[in-house]
Amino acid sequence: MDKEIQALKQRVYEQNIALASYGLAVLTWGNVSGVCREKGIMAIKPSGVPYAEMKADDMVLVSLESGEVIDSEYRPSSDTPTHLYMYRAFPKIGGAVHTHSLYAVAWAQAGKSIPAFGTTHADAFYGDVPVTRALTKDEVEQAYEANTGKVIAETFSKLDYEAIPAVLVKNHGPFTWGPTPEKAVENAVTLEFVARAASETLRVNAQTERVDSYLLDKHYFRKHGKNAYYGQKKK
Amino acid sequence: MDKEIQALKQRVYEQNIALASYGLAVLTWGNVSGVCREKGIMAIKPSGVPYAEMKADDMVLVSLESGEVIDSEYRPSSDTPTHLYMYRAFPKIGGAVHTHSLYAVAWAQAGKSIPAFGTTHADAFYGDVPVTRALTKDEVEQAYEANTGKVIAETFSKLDYEAIPAVLVKNHGPFTWGPTPEKAVENAVTLEFVARAASETLRVNAQTERVDSYLLDKHYFRKHGKNAYYGQKKK
Amino acid sequence: MDKEIQALKQRVYEQNIALASYGLAVLTWGNVSGVCREKGIMAIKPSGVPYAEMKADDMVLVSLESGEVIDSEYRPSSDTPTHLYMYRAFPKIGGAVHTHSLYAVAWAQAGKSIPAFGTTHADAFYGDVPVTRALTKDEVEQAYEANTGKVIAETFSKLDYEAIPAVLVKNHGPFTWGPTPEKAVENAVTLEFVARAASETLRVNAQTERVDSYLLDKHYFRKHGKNAYYGQKKK
Amino acid sequence: MDKEIQALKQRVYEQNIALASYGLAVLTWGNVSGVCREKGIMAIKPSGVPYAEMKADDMVLVSLESGEVIDSEYRPSSDTPTHLYMYRAFPKIGGAVHTHSLYAVAWAQAGKSIPAFGTTHADAFYGDVPVTRALTKDEVEQAYEANTGKVIAETFSKLDYEAIPAVLVKNHGPFTWGPTPEKAVENAVTLEFVARAASETLRVNAQTERVDSYLLDKHYFRKHGKNAYYGQKKK
Repeated sequence: MDKEIQALKQRVYEQNIALASYGLAVLTWGNVSGVCREKGIMAIKPSGVPYAEMKADDMVLVSLESGEVIDSEYRPSSDTPTHLYMYRAFPKIGGAVHTHSLYAVAWAQAGKSIPAFGTTHADAFYGDVPVTRALTKDEVEQAYEANTGKVIAETFSKLDYEAIPAVLVKNHGPFTWGPTPEKAVENAVTLEFVARAASETLRVNAQTERVDSYLLDKHYFRKHGKNAYYGQKKK
Repeated sequence: MDKEIQALKQRVYEQNIALASYGLAVLTWGNVSGVCREKGIMAIKPSGVPYAEMKADDMVLVSLESGEVIDSEYRPSSDTPTHLYMYRAFPKIGGAVHTHSLYAVAWAQAGKSIPAFGTTHADAFYGDVPVTRALTKDEVEQAYEANTGKVIAETFSKLDYEAIPAVLVKNHGPFTWGPTPEKAVENAVTLEFVARAASETLRVNAQTERVDSYLLDKHYFRKHGKNAYYGQKKK
Repeated sequence: MDKEIQALKQRVYEQNIALASYGLAVLTWGNVSGVCREKGIMAIKPSGVPYAEMKADDMVLVSLESGEVIDSEYRPSSDTPTHLYMYRAFPKIGGAVHTHSLYAVAWAQAGKSIPAFGTTHADAFYGDVPVTRALTKDEVEQAYEANTGKVIAETFSKLDYEAIPAVLVKNHGPFTWGPTPEKAVENAVTLEFVARAASETLRVNAQTERVDSYLLDKHYFRKHGKNAYYGQKKK
Repeated sequence: MDKEIQALKQRVYEQNIALASYGLAVLTWGNVSGVCREKGIMAIKPSGVPYAEMKADDMVLVSLESGEVIDSEYRPSSDTPTHLYMYRAFPKIGGAVHTHSLYAVAWAQAGKSIPAFGTTHADAFYGDVPVTRALTKDEVEQAYEANTGKVIAETFSKLDYEAIPAVLVKNHGPFTWGPTPEKAVENAVTLEFVARAASETLRVNAQTERVDSYLLDKHYFRKHGKNAYYGQKKK
C-alpha cells in the first residue's frame, strides 16, 4: 500500500485510541475517520472491534465516491455512510468523529442546542452547537446512516461548518469534525466539556444568558483566522 | 475438575474483575455468575472477598437445581438465590450480574423505570428498563434473596427478558443478564451509562419525550436479530 | 517501641494512604486514627503532611487520657481533640476517620441528615446518617476541635453509634468510625457513596420515601450481629 | 542563565504539569506562572504547547515591567498580560494560575460568586469567591488580556487579595494566586472543589445559608496568620 494511505491509517488508528483514553468512548461506542482528498479514500474504525484489540492496519479503507470497501477483511463502522455524507457535504474537512460522550448525549436526547455560555465554548465553536431535527420514519427505515448525514448537512445549510465544527443528532449523540482527524478529536473533547459546563451553569443560574457577541468574536478569532495569536507560529 | 467447568470459573472470575475495573463495583458490592446449562452448574463470586485477593479457583460452584454448593471452602455470594431464580426463570441466559452502580441505584431508590430516551439505550435495551414492585414484609423476612428473584421474574411476565436484559430492584439496585457472563457485564456497563444519561437529559429538559418507536426499532434490530449489521460477521 | 504499637502505626499509615487512593482526600484533607485501648494510645496522621511523603513511622502517638503527644517530632492532625473525644465517648470503637469527601460535605453544608433510601445505605448504616447542630460561637472560639467531638457525642445521645458509624458535622464534613481503622475507612467509602446516591435519587424523584423498615432491618442484620450471613465464616 | 531563574522555570514547569495531573486542565487550557520579584522576571507556560511535550526549559521568561519576552523561541501564554497585571496589582504574590476547571467555569458563566458554605471553603478563602463584572466591548476589543487583569484588580479594590486568593472572571473562568506557584496551584485545586461542593450543596438544600462568621474566622485563622496551628512548625 502506498505510504500516504498507510500514514492515514496510522493517524486514524491513533485518534480512535485517543478517543477511548479521553474517556469519550465506552465499550466500542465511538469512531474516528480521516480522509485523503486527493486519492478519494477515507480510513475508518472497523465495526464493533474493541479498542484494546485494534491495530493500525485494521482501519478500513472506503472509497469516498462509491462508498465501497477497499481491500479489507473487516466491515467498516456502521456509521460509515454518515461519515461519507459529511465529507461530501463539508469539502474542507479532513477528519470526523462520532461519540456517545455522556453530556453531549444528554443534550442530544433533550433535543436542545448547547448555548454559547462562555469563552471555553467560544474558543472552539463560534455560536451555539446546534441540534438536528428528528429523522422521519422513512428516513430511519431507509438508508438510516446516510440520512443521519443528510440531517447534519441540512442543519448547516445556514450555518458555517468550519466555524461550528460540531452537531448533536437528536436522540442520538454528537458528531464533530475538523481539518484533520486530530483536530476533530480535539473538538469532540471540547464539545463534551462545554456540554457538561452548560448543564452545570444552568444549575447555578437557570437564567444564564449567552456570552456577549463581542466576547464570542474575540475568543474565536484569537484562535482562528488570519489574525490568530494563540499558540506558536506555524513554521 | 473437568475442563468446561474450569473454563467457566475462569470466565466468571475475569468478569468479576472487569466489573471492578469498569468502576461498577465499590468495595465488594457486585457479583457476576455464569452457568453451564448442560451440567446444571452455576459459578459465582464468593461472598465478601475483596476483588484484589480473588483467584479464578475461588469462584463457587452451585447446583442449578438444588442450590447446593459443590466442593468449595467458600460461601457463594449472598445473592446466590437471586441468580438461581433468574437462571430458572430465564432459560436462555448464560450469565447474570448484580451491582450497586451509582446511577442505576439512584433510579432504583427513586422507584422509577429508566425511560428509553435515545439510541444508546435502544442499542442494548428494547424499551424502558423496568423497576420491580417493592417486596412485602413477608417476602423480605422469608427467603429474601429468592424472593428478589421472584419479583424480577414477575416484572418480566409481560416483557421480553432477551430484549430488555436488565431490571432495577426497587430500593436496591440493578441486575443484568445475557447469553454469556461477558455480555451480562457489558449490559451492566450500558445500564449505568443510560441511567446517568437519563438523569442528565431530564436536567437539560424535564419534558423530554421517549425516542420514537421507529428509531428504537432501528437501533435495536441493527445490533440484534437475524438482520443485524453491526460488528463483524460471526466466523 | 513495642511491636503492638509499631503494628498500629503501620495500619493507621496504610489506611491514611487508602483514604487518598479511594479519592476521599484531596490535598491533605483527611485523617485516620487507630487506638490501642489496653495501652491507652492513639496513633494518628501528622498535620499537613502530604500523603505522598508520609511514612508509617511518621504517625503520631497520643495519650488517650491526657491528649499529650508521645515521642514524636511531628504535630498530630489538628483534628486530634475530635478523635480523642470520639474514642472516649464511643468505648467500643478502634478506628476513626475524618474526610472532606465531596458529597458528604455537601450534605453537611446543607445541614441535612442523609436519608436511608436503599439497601446500600442499610448494609452499613441502620437509619439516617445524622447531622450535628451548629457549634455556638463560644464552642468554636474555645477548644473548637474538642467541641466538635462534643456535638458528635451529643448527636448520638439517643442513637446507637455502633449501628450508625457515621455523622455529618454541620458546615464542616463527615466523621466515621468502626471497630478497626480498616472498617472506619470502609465506612467513609460507603458514606460518600450513599451521600452521592441520595443526591441523585432526589433528582430522579424529589418525593422519594425512605426504605421500608423491614428492608432496613433485613439488610443491616444480614451483615451485622449474630445471625449475619454475608461474607465468609470467621476462622 | 543564572541559577535562581533556572530554578523558577523548573518550579513553574512542575506546577503546570501538576495542573494537568490534578485534572484541572483539559487539552492546553490552563497555565501557571511564577515570579522573581528581585529580578523583575516572570516565568510562564508557552502558548498552546501540549503538557506532554513541554520541558522546563520551554517556560518563557517575560519582563515584569515591560512585558517583553526575554530570550525564548516560544510565545508566552496568550494570558500573559493578565498575569502581569495581577503581579503588578498584587505586590505580595509569587505565583498565579488560570484554568478552565469545570465547576469554577460553571459559576463564572453563571455570573455568580461562590458562597462560603463551609469549612473547606474557609480553610482557603476568607469569604465568598467573587465574580468580576463583564468586560465592556471596548475592553474586549482593545488589550483584552490586560483588561481581564484590570477587572480582577478592580474586583479586589475593596477585598483583601491575600485572604481571598481567587476570582471568577465572568463568562470566562477562574484565576488563583498565592505567595508561590505551588500555593497558587493548591488554591486552584481548592477552588474547583468548593465550586463543585457549593453546587451540590444547593441541590440538597436550595436555601442553604453561609457559614457563621465565627466559624469562617476560626478555620481561616487556624491555617493562616501568626496564630496558625495547622501543619508542622516552619523550620
